[in-house]
Amino acid sequence: MATSPTTGTRGSLTIDAAMRRAFELAAERPVLGPNPRVGCVILAPVSAAAGTGPDAPRAVLAEGRNAGLGPHAEAVALADAARRGIDVRGATAVVSLEPCNHTGRTPPCSVALADAGVAEVVHSVADPHDVAAGGAAYLRGRGVTVVGGVRRREGEELLGAWWHAIRAGRPYVTLKTATSLDGRVAAPDGTSRWITGPDARAHAHGVRAGVDAIVVGTGTALTDDPSLTARTDHGLATDQPLRVVVGHRDVPAGARLRAHDGGELVPLRTHDPAEVLAALAAREVRHVLVEGGPTLATAFLAAGLVDEVHAYVAPVLLGAGAGAVGDLGVATIADAHRFTTSHVRRLGDDVLVVARAERPQEEES
Amino acid sequence: MATSPTTGTRGSLTIDAAMRRAFELAAERPVLGPNPRVGCVILAPVSAAAGTGPDAPRAVLAEGRNAGLGPHAEAVALADAARRGIDVRGATAVVSLEPCNHTGRTPPCSVALADAGVAEVVHSVADPHDVAAGGAAYLRGRGVTVVGGVRRREGEELLGAWWHAIRAGRPYVTLKTATSLDGRVAAPDGTSRWITGPDARAHAHGVRAGVDAIVVGTGTALTDDPSLTARTDHGLATDQPLRVVVGHRDVPAGARLRAHDGGELVPLRTHDPAEVLAALAAREVRHVLVEGGPTLATAFLAAGLVDEVHAYVAPVLLGAGAGAVGDLGVATIADAHRFTTSHVRRLGDDVLVVARAERPQEEES
Repeated sequence: MATSPTTGTRGSLTIDAAMRRAFELAAERPVLGPNPRVGCVILAPVSAAAGTGPDAPRAVLAEGRNAGLGPHAEAVALADAARRGIDVRGATAVVSLEPCNHTGRTPPCSVALADAGVAEVVHSVADPHDVAAGGAAYLRGRGVTVVGGVRRREGEELLGAWWHAIRAGRPYVTLKTATSLDGRVAAPDGTSRWITGPDARAHAHGVRAGVDAIVVGTGTALTDDPSLTARTDHGLATDQPLRVVVGHRDVPAGARLRAHDGGELVPLRTHDPAEVLAALAAREVRHVLVEGGPTLATAFLAAGLVDEVHAYVAPVLLGAGAGAVGDLGVATIADAHRFTTSHVRRLGDDVLVVARAERPQEEES
Repeated sequence: MATSPTTGTRGSLTIDAAMRRAFELAAERPVLGPNPRVGCVILAPVSAAAGTGPDAPRAVLAEGRNAGLGPHAEAVALADAARRGIDVRGATAVVSLEPCNHTGRTPPCSVALADAGVAEVVHSVADPHDVAAGGAAYLRGRGVTVVGGVRRREGEELLGAWWHAIRAGRPYVTLKTATSLDGRVAAPDGTSRWITGPDARAHAHGVRAGVDAIVVGTGTALTDDPSLTARTDHGLATDQPLRVVVGHRDVPAGARLRAHDGGELVPLRTHDPAEVLAALAAREVRHVLVEGGPTLATAFLAAGLVDEVHAYVAPVLLGAGAGAVGDLGVATIADAHRFTTSHVRRLGDDVLVVARAERPQEEES
């Protein structure tokens, strides 16, 4: 956005448009790592003299987005204003996520906004993080007007796995399957290369590049000798997810998983999915991709710990061979593990179905 | 298309546009019954006086499409011209399918076109029917210029199952499956209502209304007591497919299959898919929908007699229960029954994958 030569500002936006701009700023960063992606736009105060009511477009004084583990979006926007000598007293901060209220890697944004004299904070999503929550309450205590819930669904969608992970207190779990139309991951002799085609495989690599950790069982690690790297058309992706191997057997010395092209190898000597997630939560992992095999997939499903399924389905019938999942204890159709389709995408001859666990509690608010 | 008051004709079209109009006329009729859907447009002769070269738009003299078992599209168009006193000598007939050359329910169109003095016939698809084939050769023998293959792929697509059925000498076979993401058609206790949702079920009824026969095994007939009718939002569809039950057991007296709301009940006391198709071919059935159960599906697949799969896939995981297909004799991935995805459609929470058997011979021409 060009800086206006007459006002030193970056155009004028309504509150709603400023929120969409905050989403845009947030979305410039991929959904990866322990921190959420957040955008912040600071709008000039309502001014009767300037003819700007609360619903009219107001000048954009500053913008910010957080970057990885550095300062939060609000702090970046305040610094942007300070650097350019712009007074934000009486201004409105429009933020895609409720400002934090705790001192972690950075000081609390709630304090910074109040100290700077901001008169109003408009946010989209309430902070789901118990430790950090309370920014809105703190700000109100300092006399700042706080409005929440603007474009909340979009804001939650933008936060992706982070939002779910913080709410649930454990990483968000995506289960990936790649099967024939009859649900098989391999032929009876164990061969499986390739059930799905190159477009599906390329897409799956893109998904790997967007998660914090890939999890497989030792069975898959020993049988398939996977590298579990995230590759793009241009080679290895910049951010490589942790490579987590679950089970009691050792990953052999010469395994591809031990090569230095991928993320850190994390062996977890357990078969309990809850323990796996607790160990990864302790490392601030927010999004886990469970890639197999069927035993591990079954354990996560049976424990109710799958938030999302990425099912790549190939137009192939096998009639026999290992299934994508084993016995889930489902005896009758009413007990089926039922997901809600989020989107469907054709990838060459294959189809990707993204389906999410139904979360009735989301409907309450 | 409005009739021009000055010329008595219906606008002017190039050969290519006339073929597209012929397709349009053909498509007004559903793909059902023993005869193909065909459209015909008769264009005025090339005339130096009128300034119309072979590639320029020429006046549309007449149009026709075939209707069920009645006269063919060419005969309808010729009758249209005759009724309005229009001379078609020297004209060009543009037809979506090569004119027939045999006397069946109607006289040969090749003879009718030559007798009427048509100078040129342009068709899209060559007649695949051995008995009827030879229209082009006959016309050339009578001095008529014949051009074939205009928009051939589209023409074949328009003919649908008919084209494949005549080429193969047996009905075109669509196999329908409705499964969970792990390829199961029922839970371990046999319950399956409903794995797929209402949108998928409504779509499946629409497919039934577009085929000549639905085939199930006696197992499905006895266990599920299906009615196998084609229903629309407004009730029963006008055309009801034959209800074919394959196997040696009797359909009980009180079965829904014996109710009078559906198509004729055709019991076939065999387990051989080739015999089933031969019996239906003898009844001029062109398109068969195999609906189940797994035993019948497996028999058709193992015999290489499935042309197309309609796989409805629900975002559900069961982990156990009957699979959509049984043992196909596939031991290793290279022997998989591989289809080519034709299209993918989301239906509510479910996905329909339409995939066709690969037909390398089609690539030759």
